[in-house]
Amino acid sequence: MNLRCVECGKVLPPEMLYECDDCGGILEVIHPNGVETDGALQTSMWRYSKKLPVRSPDHIVSLYEGMTPMHRALRMEQSLSGFRGIVYIKDETTNPTGSFKDRLVSVAISRAQELGCNGIICASSGNAGASAAAYAAKVGLKAIIVAPSHTPIEKLTQISGYGATVVLIDGHYSHSYRFAERLAKEFNYVNVTTTYLNPYGTDGLKTVGYELYEQTGGEIPDYVFVPVGSGPLVKGVYQGFQEALRESGDARKGIPKIIAVQAAGCSPIVKAFYSGDMEVTAWDQPATIASGISDPLIGYEKDGTYTLRLIRESGGGAVSVTDHEIRNAMRILAQSEGVLAEPTGACSLAGFIKMQQNHRISQDSKVVCMVTGHGYKDFKVYREMSPVVHQLKSPDDTESIRQLLCLSPD
Amino acid sequence: MNLRCVECGKVLPPEMLYECDDCGGILEVIHPNGVETDGALQTSMWRYSKKLPVRSPDHIVSLYEGMTPMHRALRMEQSLSGFRGIVYIKDETTNPTGSFKDRLVSVAISRAQELGCNGIICASSGNAGASAAAYAAKVGLKAIIVAPSHTPIEKLTQISGYGATVVLIDGHYSHSYRFAERLAKEFNYVNVTTTYLNPYGTDGLKTVGYELYEQTGGEIPDYVFVPVGSGPLVKGVYQGFQEALRESGDARKGIPKIIAVQAAGCSPIVKAFYSGDMEVTAWDQPATIASGISDPLIGYEKDGTYTLRLIRESGGGAVSVTDHEIRNAMRILAQSEGVLAEPTGACSLAGFIKMQQNHRISQDSKVVCMVTGHGYKDFKVYREMSPVVHQLKSPDDTESIRQLLCLSPD
Ligand SMILES: [Zn+2]
Ligand SMILES: [Zn+2]
Repeated sequence: MNLRCVECGKVLPPEMLYECDDCGGILEVIHPNGVETDGALQTSMWRYSKKLPVRSPDHIVSLYEGMTPMHRALRMEQSLSGFRGIVYIKDETTNPTGSFKDRLVSVAISRAQELGCNGIICASSGNAGASAAAYAAKVGLKAIIVAPSHTPIEKLTQISGYGATVVLIDGHYSHSYRFAERLAKEFNYVNVTTTYLNPYGTDGLKTVGYELYEQTGGEIPDYVFVPVGSGPLVKGVYQGFQEALRESGDARKGIPKIIAVQAAGCSPIVKAFYSGDMEVTAWDQPATIASGISDPLIGYEKDGTYTLRLIRESGGGAVSVTDHEIRNAMRILAQSEGVLAEPTGACSLAGFIKMQQNHRISQDSKVVCMVTGHGYKDFKVYREMSPVVHQLKSPDDTESIRQLLCLSPD
Repeated sequence: MNLRCVECGKVLPPEMLYECDDCGGILEVIHPNGVETDGALQTSMWRYSKKLPVRSPDHIVSLYEGMTPMHRALRMEQSLSGFRGIVYIKDETTNPTGSFKDRLVSVAISRAQELGCNGIICASSGNAGASAAAYAAKVGLKAIIVAPSHTPIEKLTQISGYGATVVLIDGHYSHSYRFAERLAKEFNYVNVTTTYLNPYGTDGLKTVGYELYEQTGGEIPDYVFVPVGSGPLVKGVYQGFQEALRESGDARKGIPKIIAVQAAGCSPIVKAFYSGDMEVTAWDQPATIASGISDPLIGYEKDGTYTLRLIRESGGGAVSVTDHEIRNAMRILAQSEGVLAEPTGACSLAGFIKMQQNHRISQDSKVVCMVTGHGYKDFKVYREMSPVVHQLKSPDDTESIRQLLCLSPD
């Protein structure tokens, strides 16, 4: 196992490093030569442990993350005018702490245990923090989670529920990112922030690609829609498919086109994609209900640039969605498919619907939408959606319920 | 497949029946002769579909429920004075809607589809309702959820998020139960209320027993602690183990002792157990933070009586826990094991700790605690637990964080 800079290609030892010491570039894991695992871990993403960057099974910290369901979204398919393809929902909401971040954090903390660790720090818009707090609790590590002051209360409650110390800092996510970086150095804690910063963590996300390859039965999807902040999940899908195809001898099939979905109020990567730019520039003032991807990338624009490169290499694209479109996708997911997603989690579906309706993808496409986080992460948004809650006045009043349901009288 | 009365033994046809037409007794499914399933369903509890009461795979309504993780609770084991045994957490919080009710509802709605169904009704303290709403959404069925007015806002938000019609009714759960029963008849909807009312639903819970048998590798646990309202999960664990043992030729091993855990503020079954009664009498005024098991059983005391019988037959027992003990168990689960449980879900652990500390179980016992529902179902309880959330005054103030963590100065 080694680390390698995705920019200059420099190879570095598999220590706790966060950037290339030559060029400051993003690091990735190469030749992880992991371990065999057995028993219960086979029902988690650690069934791929041989490909993950942890050398001893004793260091694996798992809450049985990954191996999430993939639903065929039948009712939704039928509701889309003109669509004749197939839509799958990759349901990451069933992860132990309710988001795909568990995959990343499980590997990052396992590797941290292996290399020696006093405690962990994570800058987070909420989900990564909940995940980091839970896995740290599982092994008794101190955990500091740095989050923007405006983080939804549900996410803060979850994080502190696991016993982590939550530090709130005013301003958008990039402020939290920088402060966490500084704190990690000062305290000599391992930084498990879930941008591309921790190469071991990022490596854990390729299990998403492996699973999608298996779950689609080798019938490669045409598109995978991914909600994107800085974008390590794009790398996960990309690299996972690439490796799965290579190993199965299917390499000529080609990986799916990856579509990065960002919120219209914070879409630096989408902007760069349509401008034909090779580099992403930071976003000034994020404004969106999708708190999980509200990341302006200030100071680590290179993360966006790398994601942009992977999207283009996949033959994919990018799309931004408004808060209104996100709410609509949340409603469809919950009310047609029984999957409750937070705003960020529903962005993938919102992006797909937009591109389908604008005829930007073929009507017989086979599509996967990554639903990255559970609706409980941000209940407020659901509460504002005018739900039907009817306080019964008298136990004899069944007629009012009939009316609510638009049923004909008895 | 047939239905059979657990009281008088009368056999009835496998239609949508809720009680014995002779004696009013609870019905159970016998000889379900289900179907083979393949593919993705193998990663859910439907891998046991041959033993489940649904005849055609086309009728299965699944969000990939069940096959939940079982965690070894290592840190907790070590923290219990005198304990030398093993504790497992059966983590039902990772079910699609966050509770074990998904197993029951998945089977109940699948069978309802098979028998023909205009819509579904469910009386619920919150979790069953969320589950019923989600599965109804998945197949486009109308859903009415009847819940007590004091149901936690998170649970109501989740239910209405899935598009169900929520009807709130004042008073404790038994009022909701009765109103739902009446509404189901009047509207000719299928009642999927998750007491013992729907025999197909209850039958789905035996998958918990099958899984526990498999996950403990045939080493039968000494005790399974189960949070109990009316108690169908007790039957699920009991029957599942019994069938698994019989099929594997291990029948002489005997099933685990099942311990019913109830909240001190609503513990009709525990009371009857210690009074040596053969019948459970209803509870007058429920008062507990464990909303999921705050069920006084008024009008269906027979459910409690049946659960009591099963507990005794298993050689098990019963224990009640205070709200304080429940909060303590929630804290331990989250902060030592990384599992966020709602109050009801943590009752099993609270009951185990209480019996262990009172020397009522052997110190080298092998124990399973059923953690039945996710902490997001009732975030308020966590918010009241004095979490460490620290608003940073200035980005230079790392010293205050050091103090929070009780770290020595640089
Ligand atoms: Zn470099
Ligand atoms: Zn009978």
